[in-house]
Amino acid sequence: MKKYCFGIDIGGTTVKCGLFETAGKLVDKWEITTRTRDGGKNILPDIAETIKAKAAEQGISMDEVAGVGVGVPGPVKNGKVPVAVNLHWGETDIEGELGALTGLPVKAGNDANVAALGEMWQGGAKGKRDVIVVTLGTGVGGGIIVDGKIVEGAHGAGGEIGHGHVDDTIEEPCNCGNKGCLEQVASATGIVRLAEEEMDKKADDEETLLDDKKLSSKNVFDAYKKGDDVAERIVNRFAAYLGKALGSYAAVIDPEVIVIGGGVSRAGDCLTEIVGRYYRQYAFPALKNTPIVLAQLGNDAGIYGSAKLVIDAVE
Amino acid sequence: MKKYCFGIDIGGTTVKCGLFETAGKLVDKWEITTRTRDGGKNILPDIAETIKAKAAEQGISMDEVAGVGVGVPGPVKNGKVPVAVNLHWGETDIEGELGALTGLPVKAGNDANVAALGEMWQGGAKGKRDVIVVTLGTGVGGGIIVDGKIVEGAHGAGGEIGHGHVDDTIEEPCNCGNKGCLEQVASATGIVRLAEEEMDKKADDEETLLDDKKLSSKNVFDAYKKGDDVAERIVNRFAAYLGKALGSYAAVIDPEVIVIGGGVSRAGDCLTEIVGRYYRQYAFPALKNTPIVLAQLGNDAGIYGSAKLVIDAVE
Repeated sequence: MKKYCFGIDIGGTTVKCGLFETAGKLVDKWEITTRTRDGGKNILPDIAETIKAKAAEQGISMDEVAGVGVGVPGPVKNGKVPVAVNLHWGETDIEGELGALTGLPVKAGNDANVAALGEMWQGGAKGKRDVIVVTLGTGVGGGIIVDGKIVEGAHGAGGEIGHGHVDDTIEEPCNCGNKGCLEQVASATGIVRLAEEEMDKKADDEETLLDDKKLSSKNVFDAYKKGDDVAERIVNRFAAYLGKALGSYAAVIDPEVIVIGGGVSRAGDCLTEIVGRYYRQYAFPALKNTPIVLAQLGNDAGIYGSAKLVIDAVE
Repeated sequence: MKKYCFGIDIGGTTVKCGLFETAGKLVDKWEITTRTRDGGKNILPDIAETIKAKAAEQGISMDEVAGVGVGVPGPVKNGKVPVAVNLHWGETDIEGELGALTGLPVKAGNDANVAALGEMWQGGAKGKRDVIVVTLGTGVGGGIIVDGKIVEGAHGAGGEIGHGHVDDTIEEPCNCGNKGCLEQVASATGIVRLAEEEMDKKADDEETLLDDKKLSSKNVFDAYKKGDDVAERIVNRFAAYLGKALGSYAAVIDPEVIVIGGGVSRAGDCLTEIVGRYYRQYAFPALKNTPIVLAQLGNDAGIYGSAKLVIDAVE
């Protein structure tokens, strides 16, 4: 195995870039702007250029570079992107084009899946081979890893665990078009939904730290940590939904560990504690002791995971 | 690859045996009694003997046999069975012992998982590599196949999809000890539970074909096929539970096909039709067209799957 590789995480505004030792060490990270105009035709040339510049800057010969891994905000099938709306891309042969531009092996994957692989490689699930990663942000995403490999699925929808059905009473449609998805009650926006409901339901004379606050996932968890009763009801509802769902998902692949990441996970250990309590209540007996841990790589999970993706591909 | 192999499916009363061509053809099948007394110590010697006798009878030299696959009613980790209650076994090194007795490579797996592999090899999911098999019998079992391989899981609980939580109102415990598992509403016994509830709920003057019948999964589906209103309510409740759960499970691995087997699946195409209707309502958009099909191998799924297990191991 060659000594270095690049991990690239393409987002709608910036491209996050990492130079790694293939043994796992992040040598350098930086960002460039994602130039989406003209159908995003500059994105891959810009990435090729920044890779070459970084190698030159670090005095690294391209012969020492194993390859380039790339995370893309959209589905990836057989190294090609059918469409990536945020990048203004139609069908793009990302592995072929970027490979030609850099002269290096290129491996591409969906960004959420790639971030999960990063957490397995050097984050919350380090040393494990069977992992469920759930990402609680604006939506609920996920990545499933079986035997060390991302499960892409027949339609690139492996790990779409934000869209399991968890509630028959929700009338408002989810972003996916269905009603009652996990994402509608366990994302940052889902927590706000539950908070609004609990604020409406509470007695007028019940005081809460949330009274004068903007209802946000952060404010709910902050109040929860201070023992606020209303926040406790909100967090318990959220955790019951998520704990039950994770129990069901764990029954599918029986992971060694479940990792929770995304903005909501900044709440910290109290989050895994309360979700774990509900998880253990509902999970199949053999699965009850599966650890639930926090993600550790934050916004770097994507560059770590894309680096690992190309390492596995060229090994 | 050698021309022949054996597939063995050990049950609590009989051992099902199959002689296969490794290309997939079942040459012969037969059964022997499972002698569980004395801690089940005769089971593996009996299997070794019947294998040798069958090879002799068919004029097959052991040099032409690739190996023996074995399905076991219990968890299997690293070729060993920690315990198999129905066989009166404590820890048993099944691959080592049966290997020594036959002089052949032996590969063992859990019986439900192995049956799923059989359906992938020569049954309802033939030609596919990513499959969810759900078995609706006395309980609800399952087998998950990713990239052609059974997902055993960290605790041997991969595919325990009968124990996802689907109902908060059930007070009676499931066999697993939890409350509200899929198994409690989607197994043959679960269908009887729903039938009893619907019979209690219906108006006294509403007539139904189920009035004078024993409440069984078969009788419910027979009445459903004749357009009976009460049976339709029962089947719709069952199908809603199962369709939603399969939607959630599909979001984990995004299979190419979902296979329904077990005794309840004898209801036939009307079963996959109604379950598919609910599945498509609740599944993530990219997953809505995933076919739901009937298992095809019936009680032979185990011998097919164990044969495939050893073929994959020695290849």
